[in-house]
Amino acid sequence: MDLDELEQRARALLPADVYDYIAGGSFDEITLDDNRTAWDRIRLRPRVLRDVRTVTTATTVLGVPLAHPIVVAPTAFHRMAHDDGEPATASGAADAGALFTMSTRSTAPIEDVAGALEGAPWWFQVYVLRDRETTDRLVGRAVASGCGALVLTGDTPVLGRRMRDVRNRFVLPSNLGTIESLDRPGNLADQDPGLTFDDIAWLRDRFGLPVVVKGVLRGDDAVRCLEAGAAAVWVSNHGGRQLDGTIATAAALSDVVDAVGTRAEVYVDGGVRRGTDVLKALALGAAAVMIGRPVVWGLAVGGRDGVREVLAALAAELELAMALAGCASVADVTPDLIA
Amino acid sequence: MDLDELEQRARALLPADVYDYIAGGSFDEITLDDNRTAWDRIRLRPRVLRDVRTVTTATTVLGVPLAHPIVVAPTAFHRMAHDDGEPATASGAADAGALFTMSTRSTAPIEDVAGALEGAPWWFQVYVLRDRETTDRLVGRAVASGCGALVLTGDTPVLGRRMRDVRNRFVLPSNLGTIESLDRPGNLADQDPGLTFDDIAWLRDRFGLPVVVKGVLRGDDAVRCLEAGAAAVWVSNHGGRQLDGTIATAAALSDVVDAVGTRAEVYVDGGVRRGTDVLKALALGAAAVMIGRPVVWGLAVGGRDGVREVLAALAAELELAMALAGCASVADVTPDLIA
Amino acid sequence: MDLDELEQRARALLPADVYDYIAGGSFDEITLDDNRTAWDRIRLRPRVLRDVRTVTTATTVLGVPLAHPIVVAPTAFHRMAHDDGEPATASGAADAGALFTMSTRSTAPIEDVAGALEGAPWWFQVYVLRDRETTDRLVGRAVASGCGALVLTGDTPVLGRRMRDVRNRFVLPSNLGTIESLDRPGNLADQDPGLTFDDIAWLRDRFGLPVVVKGVLRGDDAVRCLEAGAAAVWVSNHGGRQLDGTIATAAALSDVVDAVGTRAEVYVDGGVRRGTDVLKALALGAAAVMIGRPVVWGLAVGGRDGVREVLAALAAELELAMALAGCASVADVTPDLIA
Amino acid sequence: MDLDELEQRARALLPADVYDYIAGGSFDEITLDDNRTAWDRIRLRPRVLRDVRTVTTATTVLGVPLAHPIVVAPTAFHRMAHDDGEPATASGAADAGALFTMSTRSTAPIEDVAGALEGAPWWFQVYVLRDRETTDRLVGRAVASGCGALVLTGDTPVLGRRMRDVRNRFVLPSNLGTIESLDRPGNLADQDPGLTFDDIAWLRDRFGLPVVVKGVLRGDDAVRCLEAGAAAVWVSNHGGRQLDGTIATAAALSDVVDAVGTRAEVYVDGGVRRGTDVLKALALGAAAVMIGRPVVWGLAVGGRDGVREVLAALAAELELAMALAGCASVADVTPDLIA
Repeated sequence: MDLDELEQRARALLPADVYDYIAGGSFDEITLDDNRTAWDRIRLRPRVLRDVRTVTTATTVLGVPLAHPIVVAPTAFHRMAHDDGEPATASGAADAGALFTMSTRSTAPIEDVAGALEGAPWWFQVYVLRDRETTDRLVGRAVASGCGALVLTGDTPVLGRRMRDVRNRFVLPSNLGTIESLDRPGNLADQDPGLTFDDIAWLRDRFGLPVVVKGVLRGDDAVRCLEAGAAAVWVSNHGGRQLDGTIATAAALSDVVDAVGTRAEVYVDGGVRRGTDVLKALALGAAAVMIGRPVVWGLAVGGRDGVREVLAALAAELELAMALAGCASVADVTPDLIA
Repeated sequence: MDLDELEQRARALLPADVYDYIAGGSFDEITLDDNRTAWDRIRLRPRVLRDVRTVTTATTVLGVPLAHPIVVAPTAFHRMAHDDGEPATASGAADAGALFTMSTRSTAPIEDVAGALEGAPWWFQVYVLRDRETTDRLVGRAVASGCGALVLTGDTPVLGRRMRDVRNRFVLPSNLGTIESLDRPGNLADQDPGLTFDDIAWLRDRFGLPVVVKGVLRGDDAVRCLEAGAAAVWVSNHGGRQLDGTIATAAALSDVVDAVGTRAEVYVDGGVRRGTDVLKALALGAAAVMIGRPVVWGLAVGGRDGVREVLAALAAELELAMALAGCASVADVTPDLIA
Repeated sequence: MDLDELEQRARALLPADVYDYIAGGSFDEITLDDNRTAWDRIRLRPRVLRDVRTVTTATTVLGVPLAHPIVVAPTAFHRMAHDDGEPATASGAADAGALFTMSTRSTAPIEDVAGALEGAPWWFQVYVLRDRETTDRLVGRAVASGCGALVLTGDTPVLGRRMRDVRNRFVLPSNLGTIESLDRPGNLADQDPGLTFDDIAWLRDRFGLPVVVKGVLRGDDAVRCLEAGAAAVWVSNHGGRQLDGTIATAAALSDVVDAVGTRAEVYVDGGVRRGTDVLKALALGAAAVMIGRPVVWGLAVGGRDGVREVLAALAAELELAMALAGCASVADVTPDLIA
Repeated sequence: MDLDELEQRARALLPADVYDYIAGGSFDEITLDDNRTAWDRIRLRPRVLRDVRTVTTATTVLGVPLAHPIVVAPTAFHRMAHDDGEPATASGAADAGALFTMSTRSTAPIEDVAGALEGAPWWFQVYVLRDRETTDRLVGRAVASGCGALVLTGDTPVLGRRMRDVRNRFVLPSNLGTIESLDRPGNLADQDPGLTFDDIAWLRDRFGLPVVVKGVLRGDDAVRCLEAGAAAVWVSNHGGRQLDGTIATAAALSDVVDAVGTRAEVYVDGGVRRGTDVLKALALGAAAVMIGRPVVWGLAVGGRDGVREVLAALAAELELAMALAGCASVADVTPDLIA
């Protein structure tokens, strides 16, 4: 499967403004593009003559055994892409053995999404809203529904400005709401621009779950997250949708990995479209690699099956890339693979 | 607002040779283009989880409090772009809280421009002419009209050769003059190619105002300016209109900032089109960021309102960029934001 | 002769899917393209005023005297390109004084190919198959037919995924088989993904011939190959057909040469299209330079004569490049020629 | 004047194969293109506030006072470009105050060219032919006609392969000969591929004139030239017409200048199209900058006047560039101007 082709198929199916909302980035989309090309610029140094009769992509993320390190990143408004919405995405992810991250901007109730997972592990992405009571209630429902970790988004104190949406005068379709306002479609609660490192411990202690901070791009911030109680950090620039001109995630990863060392897991998203990109991320020190837009394209084109196919294809590509790089297991994917 | 789109709207309104005069650079326009791409090549390392409930772009420039560090650079012949000319530009700048720099090549009388500012702070850009008496008289009028500093242009001993103007056989429309010759349209007085560092102290002492030297691209020259009595230096290559092949201002800024240290403020212009460019300039050590052509496009398209909209949009973009970078104030915009 | 033009002539003659099979690389063809541009990026520092009345490209490879260091790399399925198949390629190579490497994926019997060489030196490329007995039988036939060395391919434990072939649903034409299954067309035996360094000594000892390991891209792997009994290493990424994103061979060569030192010869293939590319490879330390696709284009366009012309043209270009670089012999082609 | 436009005007006037012969480079024209872009990639650091009321481009080359450091490089077959041929080129160069270098491949007699110069200084470019007697006779005539130095071409033991000429089946028009064979049109004598450093002293001693070695691209070769008796070295890759992939002259210049130090003058040609290119070359240490193809375009378009206009325009551009860089004289053009 070629994910660029898949995107074009999804584009043909979706209203233009919906496609643009999903595909676009902020301002001049410098970071959106750079996220992609930054992986392409990295060169691999594969090993030869290793026994790869058995290659396994199996790994653990925050101690949870997974078939592979490919994880569904949180993305908004799945019912815009497909009527089946987030439950279909969650099911498809589970079918492919991929950890699913549910977004605060989900257009289906938390419980429905959790139910669709049928016991597969999942995480809940938390936008801390100005209305902390609502936040508390939403996270509480996610925890009650069995999420395994809380992903605290740290890069969205305010929304980035996306020129495609400005030009399209994009608004969420009037029949859709998100989990805090499913009964009041179109009324999205604002995020809290006053969020600080102190909120990490609050969230962890309030719900007793590990907190992963998403949006970290600097080693010093990563260290502060861990010192403030985070269980892991997630290198992301929000898919190039927030501060344009931000460093590509592939370029930021090493700084964060070096600063974190062995203290915690580091994840990465942004522009990953091939199993070789996943291999590069793992070689640079990522413990898991998150996929955003391609999952939504899969959902748009094929619903649950489409999601499964995207993730299964990436996992298969990773397995192939590992074999060709002489790596029988994720532990064999070490920094010396990078030129 | 997208400033490239604005430029295209202005282009549609203006005579082709006037558009080219404003938009063009010297010879092969290498530096013109490089000024733009040099900002794009710089990558940011935003911070997460900072309290940005209140973000302020407020700053001071030469001790004068300003709503933001975005300043109008001096540009010539505004009545070519819009009948309302420099007074409209000045009013629009004041409306947007932007410090205005009036050009010696203004097509409206100094007093009219000063009047349009209604007390808002402004600077006067000085071309020292071969005819020093005229220079003295013009600067005297600017000082009498309340300008707060004198911007001595150091990069124009002679004019750069702009091939668009050569091909268009561009001449200033016959009904327009500049401030030294409003009564003799089309007769521009020549600049003095004998200007040296000694003229800084002369200008400062003659008029008792701080002198900012514009056109500095080297640390050693910046230090000489300060030693010769300059209050600040302004990194500029005249918008790519003088020596083609000159280093982009974004690339020259660090050298000047390093050489100047804390002794004086450093400003920069050239190719700034986004709030993220302003953020990058501040992070590299600039105390203010000057905007040239986009202001003229705003003037051409919308007169006073157009100017205000350009500057207000940039200021809003800067505020957004600061929030997304985790900076609550200009003081938070430090070099570690640059990758 | 311009090899890009030759490729276009071959493209016009061949079925589209056959052309794509030969021309294509894996996934996004990043490495396929990079192999080419990596040579172009290298700059030469020619010498002047050297006596080049007599320039000789003569050299030895594994002790065998050759007219030049240009060698035919093993490529598959020559009867797809031309009815005369591998015997024509072998004859053409011999006509041009080029060492020929026969592929395990040859579509003509080993003995026919060997016969066509009429005593010229040749090597046999070994895919160790899951079925070791078949492997043993094939290599035995090659040895009995007079091959001078065994080229053990180390980079193909499994096949890379080539999107052109996926889109074209490419299959080997039903009338063709390869040497292990000429009587069972279309049934290609799988390679053994369990191949390790230990197999080098096995192969060498079993057949008493020097073993060259093909597909090495790292200095550490090269050293392990030599320690395990290899006579030489061949820097290759399989023409960009295996792990996409792999370092270009021109970029990997120095690392391998540095690690190997004077212990063994190092060869290189990938993207070589000009005599100047060969000169660069030699200057970087390669003892021979292998040519893949252009030989097949020559075969497609002109059969035996086409192969000869490609190789003779490259050898003539090398001689010319040597003269222009001030090198009278291959020994004069030293690293200082590289900028 | 824009030299790229001039080239297009010449192209419109000339037979396609003649244009290609002049414009083209060897093989893939990598070096041809790189020569141009290498100058464009260099960035300048102009100085401000220098007294440039009087700017002079005056200099000396090998002790001869010249109005500017712009020199006509030797190029072949001027009667192909214009019926007036080399005498017109020489006259135009003299008109513009540019030192003229006459080529061994001149299509007009040495004495006619010398006469056209009317006492202006000129050099004679020497191809040492296999037939040394003819060489001796030709150089003798040049010396007798008053040439001031001999330019020994060191980069052409054999001719580079130029694909345009191959495709066009280019041959020198049958009515033209060069100075060694004006009576036998089309019969060019071969250069001697056995030329070595020893021939420098031979040439110098035989004719008592300073010898400049043209085609040097390496510091070590430059030193050997000087040790062998050369008066100066000329950094050139023959306009990208010999070894393709050779380092651009702008990139090679520093290495040669560093190796030579103050012992001798270093010149450079290749891709110079602007006064800013000349400024960059001088700043990198060149004592003179040679112009090849643009002179021929000027000749083709305007004969003697066309040549003068090209050279005068470049000299004027250099003077302007010097003023804008804060350089009142060639001595002010120092390496710190380069970023």
